[in-house]
Amino acid sequence: MNEGQRARRPGGRSARVGAQVHQAVTELVSERGYGNFTVGEVAARAGVADSSVYRRWGSLEALLSEVALTRLNAQSPMPDTGSLDGDLRTYAAAVAREITGPDGLALVRLAVALSSDGPQGLKAGDALFAERMGQLQSMLDRAGDRGEQVLDALDVLDHILAPMYIRVLFGMELTPEYVDGLVDRLHRPGA
Amino acid sequence: MNEGQRARRPGGRSARVGAQVHQAVTELVSERGYGNFTVGEVAARAGVADSSVYRRWGSLEALLSEVALTRLNAQSPMPDTGSLDGDLRTYAAAVAREITGPDGLALVRLAVALSSDGPQGLKAGDALFAERMGQLQSMLDRAGDRGEQVLDALDVLDHILAPMYIRVLFGMELTPEYVDGLVDRLHRPGA
Repeated sequence: MNEGQRARRPGGRSARVGAQVHQAVTELVSERGYGNFTVGEVAARAGVADSSVYRRWGSLEALLSEVALTRLNAQSPMPDTGSLDGDLRTYAAAVAREITGPDGLALVRLAVALSSDGPQGLKAGDALFAERMGQLQSMLDRAGDRGEQVLDALDVLDHILAPMYIRVLFGMELTPEYVDGLVDRLHRPGA
Repeated sequence: MNEGQRARRPGGRSARVGAQVHQAVTELVSERGYGNFTVGEVAARAGVADSSVYRRWGSLEALLSEVALTRLNAQSPMPDTGSLDGDLRTYAAAVAREITGPDGLALVRLAVALSSDGPQGLKAGDALFAERMGQLQSMLDRAGDRGEQVLDALDVLDHILAPMYIRVLFGMELTPEYVDGLVDRLHRPGA
């Protein structure tokens, strides 16, 4: 069995290490903010050797990117409700829940930091960003295929995700009414 | 003459120190990102004593906030063109120029970092945010007084500023057409 197969075996040592390391990163980002801890501190908290972290992830930036993407995918999977309106509302509400949750701000700051933290950070951020935008575009394409309004993932980024991110960063509340209002502005049913 | 009067005397030692310290902060944020330098490093680069920085600004967070606010006010003063359309377009274009300029990304990251960097950072970010939102609301209120469309500063935050900030953070270009399009979406002349 090679390392890759072992990594994917549920409940195996590799999966356990992965979960411990992800948890350690999430806690450290939450406590100290991005950029204020080292691979050594992640490893110590996760109870693994530094070399295990470097062997598996290569760099702190790559690890941070994987943690952010895993959390986003787990907490805000792209919905498929059968209508664009349902998909947009479900997705917007899930993102709002996630970024206002216990370590939501840490996650937003991580995404922001990854997006502009030098060449390596940019690469990690780009991959994260491209993956999420691709998933979002697939959801919007399904609506277009059904004859509903054609939207671009960038429209959703600009007028649903960006306002929520900025409001959370500036300490404002996201009420369900506010989040629904963002969807209302963008989506014209029947258009 | 007390310290406060001296600080405001143009061309005096205090003004010179202020300019040197602001320049040092801008350079360090640009080179290393927010949070990766100390008051000591700012002071060394500005050629002043650490104690001068602490005496005048109290903390690194307060200094960073003042630098960000000064730059925003100098580079994007609120326009007063006589029409809401002119004001919004002028303001949006100025912000776009500023955040895509040589150290624009550093400024955006500083604003984001200040907004969520613990109790002291939050306070500094809050002051910066409240001051800018107040200026923006005054511009919008003038339009309302003229009988033009009534807009809230938060609408401009959500649908003009937030998309531009997020796009810059994710490395996307802001074309004049894109920026004008954001204004078009928000402002319905004659409304």
